[in-house]
Amino acid sequence: MKILVVNGPNLNMLGKREPDKYGTKSLRDIEDDLRALAGELGTDIAFFQSNREGELVDALQKADDETDGVILNAGAYTHTSVAVRDAIAAISVPVVEVHVTNPHAREDFRRRSLIAEVCRGSIAGFGAASYNLALLWFTKYRALS
Amino acid sequence: MKILVVNGPNLNMLGKREPDKYGTKSLRDIEDDLRALAGELGTDIAFFQSNREGELVDALQKADDETDGVILNAGAYTHTSVAVRDAIAAISVPVVEVHVTNPHAREDFRRRSLIAEVCRGSIAGFGAASYNLALLWFTKYRALS
Amino acid sequence: MKILVVNGPNLNMLGKREPDKYGTKSLRDIEDDLRALAGELGTDIAFFQSNREGELVDALQKADDETDGVILNAGAYTHTSVAVRDAIAAISVPVVEVHVTNPHAREDFRRRSLIAEVCRGSIAGFGAASYNLALLWFTKYRALS
Amino acid sequence: MKILVVNGPNLNMLGKREPDKYGTKSLRDIEDDLRALAGELGTDIAFFQSNREGELVDALQKADDETDGVILNAGAYTHTSVAVRDAIAAISVPVVEVHVTNPHAREDFRRRSLIAEVCRGSIAGFGAASYNLALLWFTKYRALS
Amino acid sequence: MKILVVNGPNLNMLGKREPDKYGTKSLRDIEDDLRALAGELGTDIAFFQSNREGELVDALQKADDETDGVILNAGAYTHTSVAVRDAIAAISVPVVEVHVTNPHAREDFRRRSLIAEVCRGSIAGFGAASYNLALLWFTKYRALS
Amino acid sequence: MKILVVNGPNLNMLGKREPDKYGTKSLRDIEDDLRALAGELGTDIAFFQSNREGELVDALQKADDETDGVILNAGAYTHTSVAVRDAIAAISVPVVEVHVTNPHAREDFRRRSLIAEVCRGSIAGFGAASYNLALLWFTKYRALS
Amino acid sequence: MKILVVNGPNLNMLGKREPDKYGTKSLRDIEDDLRALAGELGTDIAFFQSNREGELVDALQKADDETDGVILNAGAYTHTSVAVRDAIAAISVPVVEVHVTNPHAREDFRRRSLIAEVCRGSIAGFGAASYNLALLWFTKYRALS
Amino acid sequence: MKILVVNGPNLNMLGKREPDKYGTKSLRDIEDDLRALAGELGTDIAFFQSNREGELVDALQKADDETDGVILNAGAYTHTSVAVRDAIAAISVPVVEVHVTNPHAREDFRRRSLIAEVCRGSIAGFGAASYNLALLWFTKYRALS
Amino acid sequence: MKILVVNGPNLNMLGKREPDKYGTKSLRDIEDDLRALAGELGTDIAFFQSNREGELVDALQKADDETDGVILNAGAYTHTSVAVRDAIAAISVPVVEVHVTNPHAREDFRRRSLIAEVCRGSIAGFGAASYNLALLWFTKYRALS
Amino acid sequence: MKILVVNGPNLNMLGKREPDKYGTKSLRDIEDDLRALAGELGTDIAFFQSNREGELVDALQKADDETDGVILNAGAYTHTSVAVRDAIAAISVPVVEVHVTNPHAREDFRRRSLIAEVCRGSIAGFGAASYNLALLWFTKYRALS
Amino acid sequence: MKILVVNGPNLNMLGKREPDKYGTKSLRDIEDDLRALAGELGTDIAFFQSNREGELVDALQKADDETDGVILNAGAYTHTSVAVRDAIAAISVPVVEVHVTNPHAREDFRRRSLIAEVCRGSIAGFGAASYNLALLWFTKYRALS
Amino acid sequence: MKILVVNGPNLNMLGKREPDKYGTKSLRDIEDDLRALAGELGTDIAFFQSNREGELVDALQKADDETDGVILNAGAYTHTSVAVRDAIAAISVPVVEVHVTNPHAREDFRRRSLIAEVCRGSIAGFGAASYNLALLWFTKYRALS
Repeated sequence: MKILVVNGPNLNMLGKREPDKYGTKSLRDIEDDLRALAGELGTDIAFFQSNREGELVDALQKADDETDGVILNAGAYTHTSVAVRDAIAAISVPVVEVHVTNPHAREDFRRRSLIAEVCRGSIAGFGAASYNLALLWFTKYRALS
Repeated sequence: MKILVVNGPNLNMLGKREPDKYGTKSLRDIEDDLRALAGELGTDIAFFQSNREGELVDALQKADDETDGVILNAGAYTHTSVAVRDAIAAISVPVVEVHVTNPHAREDFRRRSLIAEVCRGSIAGFGAASYNLALLWFTKYRALS
Repeated sequence: MKILVVNGPNLNMLGKREPDKYGTKSLRDIEDDLRALAGELGTDIAFFQSNREGELVDALQKADDETDGVILNAGAYTHTSVAVRDAIAAISVPVVEVHVTNPHAREDFRRRSLIAEVCRGSIAGFGAASYNLALLWFTKYRALS
Repeated sequence: MKILVVNGPNLNMLGKREPDKYGTKSLRDIEDDLRALAGELGTDIAFFQSNREGELVDALQKADDETDGVILNAGAYTHTSVAVRDAIAAISVPVVEVHVTNPHAREDFRRRSLIAEVCRGSIAGFGAASYNLALLWFTKYRALS
Repeated sequence: MKILVVNGPNLNMLGKREPDKYGTKSLRDIEDDLRALAGELGTDIAFFQSNREGELVDALQKADDETDGVILNAGAYTHTSVAVRDAIAAISVPVVEVHVTNPHAREDFRRRSLIAEVCRGSIAGFGAASYNLALLWFTKYRALS
Repeated sequence: MKILVVNGPNLNMLGKREPDKYGTKSLRDIEDDLRALAGELGTDIAFFQSNREGELVDALQKADDETDGVILNAGAYTHTSVAVRDAIAAISVPVVEVHVTNPHAREDFRRRSLIAEVCRGSIAGFGAASYNLALLWFTKYRALS
Repeated sequence: MKILVVNGPNLNMLGKREPDKYGTKSLRDIEDDLRALAGELGTDIAFFQSNREGELVDALQKADDETDGVILNAGAYTHTSVAVRDAIAAISVPVVEVHVTNPHAREDFRRRSLIAEVCRGSIAGFGAASYNLALLWFTKYRALS
Repeated sequence: MKILVVNGPNLNMLGKREPDKYGTKSLRDIEDDLRALAGELGTDIAFFQSNREGELVDALQKADDETDGVILNAGAYTHTSVAVRDAIAAISVPVVEVHVTNPHAREDFRRRSLIAEVCRGSIAGFGAASYNLALLWFTKYRALS
Repeated sequence: MKILVVNGPNLNMLGKREPDKYGTKSLRDIEDDLRALAGELGTDIAFFQSNREGELVDALQKADDETDGVILNAGAYTHTSVAVRDAIAAISVPVVEVHVTNPHAREDFRRRSLIAEVCRGSIAGFGAASYNLALLWFTKYRALS
Repeated sequence: MKILVVNGPNLNMLGKREPDKYGTKSLRDIEDDLRALAGELGTDIAFFQSNREGELVDALQKADDETDGVILNAGAYTHTSVAVRDAIAAISVPVVEVHVTNPHAREDFRRRSLIAEVCRGSIAGFGAASYNLALLWFTKYRALS
Repeated sequence: MKILVVNGPNLNMLGKREPDKYGTKSLRDIEDDLRALAGELGTDIAFFQSNREGELVDALQKADDETDGVILNAGAYTHTSVAVRDAIAAISVPVVEVHVTNPHAREDFRRRSLIAEVCRGSIAGFGAASYNLALLWFTKYRALS
Repeated sequence: MKILVVNGPNLNMLGKREPDKYGTKSLRDIEDDLRALAGELGTDIAFFQSNREGELVDALQKADDETDGVILNAGAYTHTSVAVRDAIAAISVPVVEVHVTNPHAREDFRRRSLIAEVCRGSIAGFGAASYNLALLWFTKYRALS
């Protein structure tokens, strides 16, 4: 099994950006932890980050052929991108939405997720652990759903 | 560690209620699976279900003294109960919101969660596995967050 | 055939409560009239009233096994209870929504019925006669629909 | 007693129009059934159908002099016609609103009834039987209200 | 000069319809008064009433060739008819909007006038006198505007 | 009979302010015309203009004792002043709302009149003639209403 | 093949009505052009225009039996008529929505089309050519869709 | 005279729950203070607290027979319960709404009170003193109103 | 201690203005009663009334230096004045909002208080007694809050 | 004449993406058909597709110098991109909006087109044929508009 | 050149009012700084402050004759005053809107500026420097615009 | 000190794009003027323009390390980009928002700025001079704020 972890705009700033809100771990730290967990679970894992809406669309389209599932933190595009939504709907592998913080505890415009409706499920508010839980679902609990 | 799993209105109908939407597992099946997982993880687990808003408030208040955390599927009260929200805000143990289905893929009135803002995190759309992921967070990934 | 008549909050005040709006008949009077009509029509009839949302949910769930249909005046919960709505959707016997007054001729917040969408039909504005018409549908006109 | 049954736009298509939604009975079938029931109940009954808003207004105005009550399925004009509403308010005989389907279970713009507020009561969702129940109210249960 | 007075739906019920709101004068009484005033002022006057939206559109279109101005009480169509609005915009003679009652002191849906924007001016709330004032504007005060 | 004409903010700029919209007559010109007409009609007339909301409230309160009616062009306060509205409701002499332009043909925030509901009637869009028509109503057509 | 071209309210004013917006061609000119094009394409074509909502409903119902498709410019009823919408939904021949101007570039209330949802497709903003393109779709490109 | 003090959901957590917002006094402390004040004023006082909407409805209904007035802090149900509202409307003894904090200085959903409209008056934002002022109104200032 | 009682627009009309709504006491009567109560309580009291928004702002600013607290009935400005709100926020002495009637039981635009959020507390619906309760809070119950 | 066909995000998935909604033709198939039609009509045609908002803006800007018109299917950016809208407004060659499906028959957020207002016209719902009709307009019917 | 600096309600409290938000400079300090800068730039400058909406309207009207431009901080009236807006539109000298804080970073009701639309430009969020930048625009950069 | 001037989509069209709205200066002209002013003020200045949202995010992130402040005209992304907003919030150097035109005097969707809330201040409506004023703030007036 191969899982792609896709991170959207400004997530490359993790650790530097408002650390009291987003924690002090860098995106690299999170990716290292996930790589270790993937190793334990015996699954392949790859990473992609971009600040550009269209590159996220490209990545999702390509993932349809090359992976078994996507863990997606679309960042700001969660709330504004119909293009990312359409890309998720256009592909067949399951996509799980994750967020570091809980968008419902923030500004109003973050409470609406354009992509939740076409994702398999969503996990939010657990910091870096949101990614771990998503990976566990793909590898150990997917049959249960 | 002791975790309380609280289920709200109509979740006692799981397995019988619209099985194509909610799956064929009964609430008892889910509780049995969770008890087994809790055993493996070496944690205590308890269960409570009620169709009544006030009894959920009572249960949350009591959990503050007697448990280390709550996994809460508030069902329909997720969308209408300020009382449940206030109870979560009034207690100190962390509460994790779970849903069997993805509320964002359903009717409009299910897209607004009154409780998300005061929960530690939320997990939705993974069927019975939503509960498992929540339990794993409490026992293995909480330090990571 | 067995029909359950379920009345929600404050309907136990009928006759005393704003009689120019709700009429001077007590709930007991209405139930007596319905029992007489049921006798004529050769059908069993039972009654339940509660001011509590959760008890209405319980009653609807139980009616699924024990009756052939429900006549429901959910009172104030008509406008606020997703829990009652979910209970109706979760059971298989048909539920007919009735109201003594016409909610559309009253306050704005009474114009929205959360339960109409999942009921078989609705009858409103005929005072006590709303219940009679509902009972006639179950016993004589259901085949016609 | 004389009752007028008024049907609005596209109800002349009943039986042909989306039969899974509106049933297979034609408007003529429904009128025949009602005529039979009126016969049993010893009341006069007349019928009028038009696709034109203004003709419905005319019919309602005339009914004030010539009948004892109106059973009105205003169809699409239910949701858009202030003129029909004003006609109902301008006359003194009671008007009962009926619908074959339950407008609350359909598109948003069908959930708002401009006429409910000025009708005596409303009956919706029982297919052809909605008309029968309305006729029964006029003939047998009106005293009860 | 020739003025056409156009009255919309249910205004033929004036005097009979809710007389405490609309007064006890019939439409004929009002027309007689206006004819007398027109005589004094030395102007031609004609009258048209219809309950039908399309006939009002026809009348407005024809007025463009045959009259010097229109006094229009569009009744309920004031609030719902884009067709009447477009007809006013399509013709060149000035149209003055009149109302017997003050729509702003009534239901919310009567507060929005689709036609006000394309009329020359509007006069509301003066009972039958609203028509007189409109006629005076055409005959004596138009130069002043 | 004594009529008070009250003009609100910026109406002292008439003639200078956007003359293509408001005409080239100054407020003094309009007042002179009205004084002449009042003379012909044998009625007393007085004038008051202020840019200040509170002074309009004062003027309306005083008019209750000293006049038989008020012609009020509240200008911008039409759309924002609950205080002016309350003053109109608090006094017993009739108040007629006038406007030089038609507020419905302008910006959205000018379409809502807080005062229309408590005025006797309203006249808008006839330029300076709006005032003349209001004066005629007080002196010649009030009995007709 | 036989195509019916249905034009709604005020379209009989084309050429006369706001020619800078709607062009200088009369409806007759447009119909002549279309007849010529239909001749070239070897298809029958018929025309109907009415200012009345109900007559448009009648025409659409009749078209179901007598034609192979409808080109519909519902004019103002596009934005207000649930009755026209229901008529389109009730018939089986495809209906193509056309507009001379682009409703999205005009007033807000013209941006909502009640009928778009039940039409096969829509063509707007090309002046008289909107009709030609619709006819070409029926005759030459329908197989392609 | 006998006054009933009714407290709704989570008010049993006073003193423990977010003390910087709600103060450090427990509900028992407040009740003791009120009992003392009632003693001074020579009036009977009783207390009821419940987290359950339906029990509040029951308590209000019973209060109609057994008391001379109710001091009601409905807590979260203030904002969501039509049932509590209807109970207040259904009884004849006056109900005074109190709040410890000022709901207008908090989340948006706390700014709407469903019950204010049917209460005699409301007192909010004075901490525990809100109850004292309500009691003083019943005992000393009611005649003044 | 010195308390200033500030009354806004139209409150000088108390007793004359809609007495069934506002009571028959004049503002002077209320002020006399309050002066007497202040005497009993051994506190200084002063009064100010104005119909002008800016004068209320001035009075609040001055009160910051000269008094220990303000009892404010801002009348209509409660619902429209950001300036009064800002003045309250800019001063340090506590301001208590009072209303003679209950704004929530009146028109929609009276349900929103721009000033509640920055006042210490609010008392509404008790007629003249609203002022008395506010004065009692300042003198006897402020320590309790 | 030279026409540029611009396709936005996810249109490169045509044929693969939800074929029951978008048809089984690939974007290449559509482009081949268009190239053939352009050949017949004796016009040059070029194609561009990108998933990236900014690249669509670039393409539109460049088209202003190099082409005589643009056929634009902006896909998801239709509903979210002010940048694409501004690019269309900034260039002088006409842009025709096309859609494969009818956005009005889909989710709410697809009903609002940010670009319709600045396009010359729009064609939607005819599948691949939408592009053909647009090309025909540019080459044969543009003079007619 | 002569510039008038107009400050609205509560700006006379600068330095005292919420200094962490508005800074510690008094309005006098700001005026002194501006006078010095005007001296350097060789321009006349005058100042006006009032808490009263109508006085701001007066000042703006007078400025039309006596100055070459206005720097306006309308304070709270920015968000509520149609009268101030109309005054700006009625005069010909340019008005520049300034704010000490950034209204978009504050309460919702401060995000809407009724006057921005009729001002030449706006400068917000730079504290006292907002005024300096406005003055520089009038004296040095106006030609550049 | 080093300042980066960032321009968003379609600003490379300045001078060509709707010159009556945006002026006849090209972006290059503006940049030349700013470079000259920066020279006078003794500060470094750099420029970046892109039509792509993601590249603006990249540029802002890089500016955090390499510059002392950003002058940002985000063009259309001002109104739609949460990603740009998050980038501004994620960096520590101050960002000043500028606009050539006044967005409040244009379409509704341009009145909402997603980025204003996280910018240090904003300057709009002064044409090219908006940039100059922003540069002056960074170099001469920042200490004043």
